[in-house]
Amino acid sequence: MLMHMPTRQELKDTQSERDHRGIAIDRVGIKNLKYPIRVKEKNGSGQETVATITLTVDLPHEFKGTHMSRFLEVISNWGFELASDSIGGILPALMERLDSERAHIDIEFPFFIEKEAPVTGAKGLMDYVVRFNATGEADHVDLVTTVEVHVTTLCPCSKAISTRGAHNQRGVVTLAVRTNGFVWVEDLISLVEEAASSELYSLLKRPDEKAVTERAYDNPVFVEDLVRNIAMKVKEEERITWYRVEAENFESIHNHNAYAMIEKHNGDSSSPSRGSGEE
Amino acid sequence: MLMHMPTRQELKDTQSERDHRGIAIDRVGIKNLKYPIRVKEKNGSGQETVATITLTVDLPHEFKGTHMSRFLEVISNWGFELASDSIGGILPALMERLDSERAHIDIEFPFFIEKEAPVTGAKGLMDYVVRFNATGEADHVDLVTTVEVHVTTLCPCSKAISTRGAHNQRGVVTLAVRTNGFVWVEDLISLVEEAASSELYSLLKRPDEKAVTERAYDNPVFVEDLVRNIAMKVKEEERITWYRVEAENFESIHNHNAYAMIEKHNGDSSSPSRGSGEE
Amino acid sequence: MLMHMPTRQELKDTQSERDHRGIAIDRVGIKNLKYPIRVKEKNGSGQETVATITLTVDLPHEFKGTHMSRFLEVISNWGFELASDSIGGILPALMERLDSERAHIDIEFPFFIEKEAPVTGAKGLMDYVVRFNATGEADHVDLVTTVEVHVTTLCPCSKAISTRGAHNQRGVVTLAVRTNGFVWVEDLISLVEEAASSELYSLLKRPDEKAVTERAYDNPVFVEDLVRNIAMKVKEEERITWYRVEAENFESIHNHNAYAMIEKHNGDSSSPSRGSGEE
Amino acid sequence: MLMHMPTRQELKDTQSERDHRGIAIDRVGIKNLKYPIRVKEKNGSGQETVATITLTVDLPHEFKGTHMSRFLEVISNWGFELASDSIGGILPALMERLDSERAHIDIEFPFFIEKEAPVTGAKGLMDYVVRFNATGEADHVDLVTTVEVHVTTLCPCSKAISTRGAHNQRGVVTLAVRTNGFVWVEDLISLVEEAASSELYSLLKRPDEKAVTERAYDNPVFVEDLVRNIAMKVKEEERITWYRVEAENFESIHNHNAYAMIEKHNGDSSSPSRGSGEE
Repeated sequence: MLMHMPTRQELKDTQSERDHRGIAIDRVGIKNLKYPIRVKEKNGSGQETVATITLTVDLPHEFKGTHMSRFLEVISNWGFELASDSIGGILPALMERLDSERAHIDIEFPFFIEKEAPVTGAKGLMDYVVRFNATGEADHVDLVTTVEVHVTTLCPCSKAISTRGAHNQRGVVTLAVRTNGFVWVEDLISLVEEAASSELYSLLKRPDEKAVTERAYDNPVFVEDLVRNIAMKVKEEERITWYRVEAENFESIHNHNAYAMIEKHNGDSSSPSRGSGEE
Repeated sequence: MLMHMPTRQELKDTQSERDHRGIAIDRVGIKNLKYPIRVKEKNGSGQETVATITLTVDLPHEFKGTHMSRFLEVISNWGFELASDSIGGILPALMERLDSERAHIDIEFPFFIEKEAPVTGAKGLMDYVVRFNATGEADHVDLVTTVEVHVTTLCPCSKAISTRGAHNQRGVVTLAVRTNGFVWVEDLISLVEEAASSELYSLLKRPDEKAVTERAYDNPVFVEDLVRNIAMKVKEEERITWYRVEAENFESIHNHNAYAMIEKHNGDSSSPSRGSGEE
Repeated sequence: MLMHMPTRQELKDTQSERDHRGIAIDRVGIKNLKYPIRVKEKNGSGQETVATITLTVDLPHEFKGTHMSRFLEVISNWGFELASDSIGGILPALMERLDSERAHIDIEFPFFIEKEAPVTGAKGLMDYVVRFNATGEADHVDLVTTVEVHVTTLCPCSKAISTRGAHNQRGVVTLAVRTNGFVWVEDLISLVEEAASSELYSLLKRPDEKAVTERAYDNPVFVEDLVRNIAMKVKEEERITWYRVEAENFESIHNHNAYAMIEKHNGDSSSPSRGSGEE
Repeated sequence: MLMHMPTRQELKDTQSERDHRGIAIDRVGIKNLKYPIRVKEKNGSGQETVATITLTVDLPHEFKGTHMSRFLEVISNWGFELASDSIGGILPALMERLDSERAHIDIEFPFFIEKEAPVTGAKGLMDYVVRFNATGEADHVDLVTTVEVHVTTLCPCSKAISTRGAHNQRGVVTLAVRTNGFVWVEDLISLVEEAASSELYSLLKRPDEKAVTERAYDNPVFVEDLVRNIAMKVKEEERITWYRVEAENFESIHNHNAYAMIEKHNGDSSSPSRGSGEE
């Protein structure tokens, strides 16, 4: 297509020029890259899914720019296989290839778990959202694992004051944790589901629907109860060193949502790096 | 900033060049323009809101391009004041300024109605989404008015089979109509709200929450019931000549939604022009 | 968990009750279901991806409701393997299981193609969006296949009037087709990419970036040109019996988008069923 | 509608019950409330727009729940009039009405500025996004003001290596600041626009388009340059005590985005409270 094909050496490397503004950049890289990945499952198997990825590094004040194509090369050389114990593996490659002191990977993907209906045992796939936000520096990796879990919540106030029925709705719980050992996302998801009025299902037959309806009615929770129930369970799990739990109810009687959040505060060392949960 | 300021006459008018591919364009224009507007209210007042606007015209096969800046000029000259009886007014200006045979405006905006809680009468603002999709041709305007209304739905099956409680959730109804006379969007919204298990409110005190909970329990509807109830009400309204009603429930026990749709079919003349509801 | 497990026979089947409103429902079913699927590739291989699925059927006027769980059962029994020649296979199962005359599947997923950079040949994965909207009735299936392809567009007017440079931007082309024979989505994507100022790439080294920049500058297109170029190519493809092509430019000099659309009009028989491209 | 209207006194106040889990809640309240507001403008006037609002307070460990309806009452009693010097005014009302020690308001809205085209002076409205994230505690208010500004960026590398043209695109800059004095959002927006290859316009005639195209070609910036240019300007503004600037380019030659971020780090006291920019 091109008559003349200049070599890279002939083409000016603007990015490598010296910058004189004296300002280092905290994060620079590529954002919103879609990529197929394979994620390890607790049952020993694995599942294919599609991730949205942000890869960034720091840039010292003396360089004009980073080399964006190298982020793609690191991704291409990467093996697609992913679990929270391997996500950090990409960070040293980023630091070396981009010649930087610090690297970040933020990755989000839908994750599926087969679930049996509570009475009939009918099987169906439930979908969740999982995020890993990892920062690497020297030989240290800081990893925040996040699960987004949809649940049923039934309002305790509505139940208490009404002679029949109680408003309930779908809500979303977002649980982010740091751990000092490996924790399966399947276990984080279960922990959240057990704290709600009921978990959700993909496939429910009539006997299941009856069971789920009555279970929710028997276990009313405010968003406040939901985040507290989860915080209590998280505290019992010794491997979790930091957490933030948020619950948001898509209220069935309002057009706005109810929201609650608890975050573990224990000094700067264990609080998350800024923005780790944002991207 | 510029040393030389060429006049428009000096600058080549690429768009006005002759095109030789022989293909007319159905719609060309600007999309996703944000603009503040003022909308007339049934109570005689008006409200300020922010619209997302698409403006398009047809382009005969012989012209290479349209003049995009003229769409903005038409909008700038427009008076901001809007109701379904004035939306068509912008179309002749578009056709004249763009020298076209057909023009379209697709406009969507949040719309607010003050509502009183059912027992205490406490007042709060509820938000809705309103869309006008208008096509002008010669001296004819075809207008589709759409309202998106969030409601409560309570499942009849869940209620019938459970010894206590019944799953319920927020749902969204989308009602699109063509009329042969002026109809207030406030009336379309009321028509939808009356067909649900309960309407939503912004502000509810405890006696209101009790009333709304019990009302929903006493009026269970499937998505199928919801669209049928609305279709029956719409049929009683003589000014409505065509309609499509959709209901989507954000099921509180599932992670997918329940959906139903009814559209009036009465020959090509009254069916909507393709895509009129899409943008 | 439940002391008493009623059988399905004991539980009232509200959905199967007779309805007396006399209104048939055009579409009822489940929407926004996330599901992992495997899609056939032109190269003989296949790829795993994640779909968003809507499944609906018609409901005669005499039935109160459909049985939502059966849609999930049909999906569960389905083999996950998908191509435009097999998508219709799910429709007879839906019609039989839901006892309906007409069934629809609307499915959307990200689709990946490995692409070589134009000069260095460096490989990277490009992502696209693919949609199948299929309607089955008796032994007939109507299928609309849609691809969303991001491209580079460079403005001919800006190039013609400026002494240096020309504004360019990312744009998205949405091409929907009906065919009378099998067509690979890979071929539809190529057809679109060849009509733009340049196609996009995931990984470009400096010699590639030079080539792509100059190629775009040498091939300026308005959104009008883009849809016309694609319409011309589509017309040469005998297997395509209907098409609609839309282009939307995320203008680099404006905060709104430029938009153009051409649709083949040839009588009602080949025009798409309403809403076929909407969901 | 209700035969019996119980008074509030008769209805159980579940929220006020004592909680025994011993866990305080950081934030509880309402999220995603749509509300019309009026915003002060630098020119002495004001503009109506539509806000998305989150209101939260802390909840001591001994209370089971907050009273959600009171958040709505505070909003209803509020005057709609808003500027960064008045946003804090709602916080004491929240703390008092909800009986809490700390309150937060997170508010986001589209904001319009009339702009003249650079050569012809043709006027058009440009839209931006503005956010205020305010936390009140005792008599202290911490306010983060954020502007999202779309701009043109032209790639310095593409320009340097290509014999003609240079890829450019729309990008979005997000600038968040804390100040020790009043700063107009209009001034933050100007500061960002001056740092880009070019600012965007709503309405450009051909002489304007020529000027903007050439201006962008003469001022190439990487995302790295963009955030550094803005950081330098921000540092010169004495009233700004903390900032974070992000730039994201919707690359015209790729399907992923380029991203860069600089944040002022100067000890814990001036770094933002966690999550202040997230909601």
